[in-house]
Amino acid sequence: MPDSVAPETGVPADFEVTTWRGGFGNQVGPIYQRFSADGTWARGFLVTDKHTNGFQNCHGGMLMAFADMAFGSVVTYELHRFWVTVRLVTDFVSSAQLGEFVQGNAVITGTEDDFVTVRGHIWTGGNSPQMAGARTIMTGTGLFKMLGERPGQSPLDVQAKPQKAL
Amino acid sequence: MPDSVAPETGVPADFEVTTWRGGFGNQVGPIYQRFSADGTWARGFLVTDKHTNGFQNCHGGMLMAFADMAFGSVVTYELHRFWVTVRLVTDFVSSAQLGEFVQGNAVITGTEDDFVTVRGHIWTGGNSPQMAGARTIMTGTGLFKMLGERPGQSPLDVQAKPQKAL
Repeated sequence: MPDSVAPETGVPADFEVTTWRGGFGNQVGPIYQRFSADGTWARGFLVTDKHTNGFQNCHGGMLMAFADMAFGSVVTYELHRFWVTVRLVTDFVSSAQLGEFVQGNAVITGTEDDFVTVRGHIWTGGNSPQMAGARTIMTGTGLFKMLGERPGQSPLDVQAKPQKAL
Repeated sequence: MPDSVAPETGVPADFEVTTWRGGFGNQVGPIYQRFSADGTWARGFLVTDKHTNGFQNCHGGMLMAFADMAFGSVVTYELHRFWVTVRLVTDFVSSAQLGEFVQGNAVITGTEDDFVTVRGHIWTGGNSPQMAGARTIMTGTGLFKMLGERPGQSPLDVQAKPQKAL
């Protein structure tokens, strides 16, 4: 889903801008996404002045908002459904600094009827939290309720491939 | 802490604008606060277009960001300390609609060294979640680490009065 809006300086080249322009997405975005050749994906955002707290780090509220978007995206990207959040648990591991590009994703840990549980990760410093130089910013879990079908948002289909551990 | 910025239409008269203008506060605010004669307090915000998700309700990410601010405020207002968030658990009970004024606060459930645990509540429809017509939007718990002293942010002092249950 390429977009006509040019990425900000500091955004990795393999990320594209999401098309989410309305409401809250416009306030806290742009939000980026990548779908990599190895089958992994992530959402991301660049910490700019508008995300800062009084310490000039990324505000914890922005990290929580991003966790909702990044963890929930697994339902959009891999199960192709709309969703609402039921419960999120977020552990703040380290701060995100002004100018850092922050990535996040999640892996599905279970589905039961229309409910999905996920384990999520937010980090900076590379395309995987295990890379040398990468730093974990937040970990957590989520419970989401699936709504109607939402095709066409990603090339991924979790039902057609083994799930990858984060 | 009165402020020269006039409240938006739809904000209850007993709320005043907080002075938080920088960074993320400017993006998602204005954020309001009240300190009532009965010893209770709350933070609040009016759900406007900039907070909406694709369903035209308040985005869950904004509710999480507000939970961080509202739950953590108990450390500012009652213990008069700066703080950082360590862990938040947020349960999404119902949605907040465009145009609704959302309130949130928290009660301290424990302190140990520099760590504070709290129980929080976010609701709409009155100055208490127990009022007729009020509706709970989110409940949760928080763990915060206290930093240096931060006097002058509120008239409250939890060490000088019994804690109120929410």
